[in-house]
Amino acid sequence: MKNIKRVLIANRGEIAVRAIRALKELGVESVAVYSTADKNSIHKDLADIAICIGDAPSSKSYLNIPAILSAIELTGADAVYPGYGFLAENYTFASICEKSNIKFVGPSSSALKLTGDKALARKAAEEAGVPTIPGSPPVETIEEALEVASKIGYPVLIKAAAGGGGRGMRVAHNQQELVKLLPIAQKEAEAAFSDKRVYIEKFILNPKHIEIQILADNFGNVIYLGERDCSIQRRHQKLVEEAPSIFIDEEIRKSMGEAAVRFAKHIGFTGAGTVEFIVDKDKNFYFIEMNGRIQVEHPVSELVTGIDIVSWQFKIADGQKLNIKQEDIKLNGHAIEFRINAEDSEKFTPNPGTIEKLYIPGGYGVRIDTHIYQGYTIPPYYDSLVAKLIVWGKNREEAIKRGKRALEEFILEGIKTTIPFHLKILNDKEFLKGTYTTTHVDRNYLGIKE
Amino acid sequence: MKNIKRVLIANRGEIAVRAIRALKELGVESVAVYSTADKNSIHKDLADIAICIGDAPSSKSYLNIPAILSAIELTGADAVYPGYGFLAENYTFASICEKSNIKFVGPSSSALKLTGDKALARKAAEEAGVPTIPGSPPVETIEEALEVASKIGYPVLIKAAAGGGGRGMRVAHNQQELVKLLPIAQKEAEAAFSDKRVYIEKFILNPKHIEIQILADNFGNVIYLGERDCSIQRRHQKLVEEAPSIFIDEEIRKSMGEAAVRFAKHIGFTGAGTVEFIVDKDKNFYFIEMNGRIQVEHPVSELVTGIDIVSWQFKIADGQKLNIKQEDIKLNGHAIEFRINAEDSEKFTPNPGTIEKLYIPGGYGVRIDTHIYQGYTIPPYYDSLVAKLIVWGKNREEAIKRGKRALEEFILEGIKTTIPFHLKILNDKEFLKGTYTTTHVDRNYLGIKE
Repeated sequence: MKNIKRVLIANRGEIAVRAIRALKELGVESVAVYSTADKNSIHKDLADIAICIGDAPSSKSYLNIPAILSAIELTGADAVYPGYGFLAENYTFASICEKSNIKFVGPSSSALKLTGDKALARKAAEEAGVPTIPGSPPVETIEEALEVASKIGYPVLIKAAAGGGGRGMRVAHNQQELVKLLPIAQKEAEAAFSDKRVYIEKFILNPKHIEIQILADNFGNVIYLGERDCSIQRRHQKLVEEAPSIFIDEEIRKSMGEAAVRFAKHIGFTGAGTVEFIVDKDKNFYFIEMNGRIQVEHPVSELVTGIDIVSWQFKIADGQKLNIKQEDIKLNGHAIEFRINAEDSEKFTPNPGTIEKLYIPGGYGVRIDTHIYQGYTIPPYYDSLVAKLIVWGKNREEAIKRGKRALEEFILEGIKTTIPFHLKILNDKEFLKGTYTTTHVDRNYLGIKE
Repeated sequence: MKNIKRVLIANRGEIAVRAIRALKELGVESVAVYSTADKNSIHKDLADIAICIGDAPSSKSYLNIPAILSAIELTGADAVYPGYGFLAENYTFASICEKSNIKFVGPSSSALKLTGDKALARKAAEEAGVPTIPGSPPVETIEEALEVASKIGYPVLIKAAAGGGGRGMRVAHNQQELVKLLPIAQKEAEAAFSDKRVYIEKFILNPKHIEIQILADNFGNVIYLGERDCSIQRRHQKLVEEAPSIFIDEEIRKSMGEAAVRFAKHIGFTGAGTVEFIVDKDKNFYFIEMNGRIQVEHPVSELVTGIDIVSWQFKIADGQKLNIKQEDIKLNGHAIEFRINAEDSEKFTPNPGTIEKLYIPGGYGVRIDTHIYQGYTIPPYYDSLVAKLIVWGKNREEAIKRGKRALEEFILEGIKTTIPFHLKILNDKEFLKGTYTTTHVDRNYLGIKE
C-alpha cells in the first residue's frame, strides 16, 4: 500500500475480523475499537492495536463519532474502515473524515448522501437510464398519496425515503388501506430515521431480490462482479444468499450489471457497493437502492469470482487502480451463505448467551467468517449474527449438499441459532428449484400474509 | 451412488473427518471405527455409526485386520475407505476385501502390490516409458551393490524396496561408505517393512519433490490434476506443499502429467493416486514411486482444480465414469498447505497434550481440515498431525500473504505445534523464490548435511 499505513476499524464482530484479515494480508496495521461489553471479543486480540471507546449501547461507543475520532487521533490511524451498520453509511461521519484528512474507506460523503436518500437515489437511477419501480417523489399528504396510487394502480408500497430493513414500509391494496397506513408509515419513518418522508410505488408481487456487486476506483473504472440472489428473507432481513442466481440468465446478468455500473458512474461512486434490484416473474428488474458499503453477503461473490472485495476496498481507498477488466470476470461454480444468528430458529427472537461447546465445520468448499470461540459470551447489545457459513461447489447441487453437511457438522452448544432454519431451507422444494421469492419465508414459515 | 450405501472408514483423525464429509455430501452412510484411546475423537461423533475396534497401539485396532473385518460385518458396511497410513497400502487387506465382496475404496490389490514394491514399480515405469533414476534392481550382497554403484557413479542412494518415509534410506559418496551403510540400510528396511531388500540408484543432488495427482476410473479413463511441490521436508517428511509449482512450466507439467497417466494405465490403476517424481535443477524428472491412496496434501490440488478428489474416490469405487476430460482441467490460482503437527517446531519432537484454547483461522481463501476442538486431548499413540491449513490465492504472492495471516491468527494453547516453523518458512528467501529443494530444511533449519 502506498498511502494507507494504519487503519482503524470502526466496527466489531465478524466484519471487524474480516477487515483485520484483509489488512494483515496487505501488510497494513489494524486498530480495533471495542466497547466495554466487547472486552472479550476476538477482534480486539487479532488487531495490532486495540482501544476501548466506551460502553454499550452503541450510541456510547460504535456510533459515538467523537469517541471514534479520538481513537483515530490517539492511535495515529490514517484511515477508517466502517464495515456495515453503525457509521458505514453516515455521510456526516464520512464528511468529517474528509475534512480531517482521515481516509474514509468507502465512497465520498456526497455519494453516500445520495445513496442514503431513496428519493435522490431513485432520481439518479432515472437519469442514468436504470429502470425504477413506477412511483412518486416523496409525498406528504393523503391527497398526494391517493393521486399517485390511482395513477400507478394498486397494490402500492409505502416506503420511508431514508429507510432500510423494512422499517416504515407498508403495502396498501386499495384507497382505504392507503388512507389508514400512510400516517403509520410516516410515524415509523420518523421514529426510525428522524425523517418522516415516504414515497409511494407500485408493489411488485412476489419478486426476487437480486443485487449486483460493483467495484469502482478513483480513475473512472467500474466493474460488476455478478449478482447475488438474496430472496430468502424474514421480514426483509436476509438469511441466505447465493451467487449466481439460477433465475438470472447471461443476458439479464449483463443488463443488470451494466445498469449497476451506469448508476455508479453517474453518481461518481468509488469503492465497493451494491446496487439492489427487485426482479418480477417476467424478469423485469427495477432499481431499489444502492448500498455504499460492504455487505454481509459479500463472500458469495468473492467465492465465485476469486476477487477479494474487502482487500479492494482498501486498495481503492489507497488510490490504486482496478487492474481487473470486466471481461476477465468469469463466474466459477456456485456459492451459498448462511447467516448463523444467535436466535431461536422458529420465532427469530434473539438468544444471546455463552458458547459452551464449539466445533466449526471445515474441509473442501467451506468458508467460515466468525468472531466466536468456545467460552465466548455473546453480548445482548448488538446484531445477532455470530457466524457466516459460506459453501462453494462446482455447481448449485454440490453447494447445497455441502451446505447441508456443514450445517449438520456444526456443534454450537449454549445458545439457540438459526441452523435448524437453514437445514429446513435446504430441504425446501422452492429453494431447491431456485424459484423462491422474497415473501417465501414469511408466507410459508412464519404464516405472515403481506 | 448406485452400489455403495454404507462405508466403513478404517482410519482416524483429520482424514476420517475428510471422508465422512465427502460421504455426507454423497448421501452415503458412514461408519467410524475408533480405538479406546480415541473415544473422545470427533470422527466418531460426526459419522452416522461408530464402533470401537480395540485398544491402542494401532496393531490392536487400526492395523488389526480381523477387528476391522468384524466391524464391517457388524455394521453392515458394503465398502471400506482406508485413508492414508494404517491399512491404506496393505494389498493383503485389499485382497481379503475383494474376496469377501467388500468394496475396497482404492486400487485393486494387484495394483497395490505393484506400487508397494519399489522394484516392481520401477520396472513398470521403465516399461511405460516413464523416466527412472539410473539404478539397479534390488541388490543383496556388497559385491552387487559396488558393481551397480561403479556403473552409475557416486553419490548413490540406498533405498528400501518396500519403503517410504525415509526409513531404510542412506546416501553413499564412495565405496567405503557404501560398504559401511548397506548393512545398516538393510537392517532398517527389515525392521520397518519386514523386507530387507534394498536397491541402489543415482543420488540426485538437491532435487525438487514434485508429484502428480491422478484419477482413474474402471473404464480406462485416466486424468492428471496438475502437480504438487512437496520439497519442504524434514528428513523426508513433508511439511508444506503447494500447487502449482513455480519451478514447473506448462511443457514440463504436460510431460510429467502424461508420464503419470501412462504409468497408471500401464499397471491398470484405478481410483486416486499420486505419481511421485524428483526433478533435478535442469528440470529432468525421474519416477520415484506411486502412492495408491489419498495423500495428506491432496487439498492443494482440490483448491486449484475445483475437483473434489475424495468424492471421486467413492464415485470411482461405486463404478461411476469420470466425467471430467483432461482438457477441462484448468489450474486456477495457487494453494499452499501447512501441516500443523503437535510437535516442537525446532526439534520436531512429538508434543501431545490437551488443547486448552482454540481459535481456528477462517475467512476468504482459508480451508481447515482438522479433528481437534477446545478441550480435546491428543493421544500419544498416533501421527502428530492435528490440523491442515490450506490457503488459496489468485496467485502465489496472495497465497503466501494469506498463509502468514492465517498462521498468525491461530490460537492453539496447551500444546506445541509446527506453526512457528511455518511462519519462518514464509519469510524464507528460498521459499519465496520457489527454488527450494528437498534438502533445504534439513540443511538450513536442522543443520543436517545430506
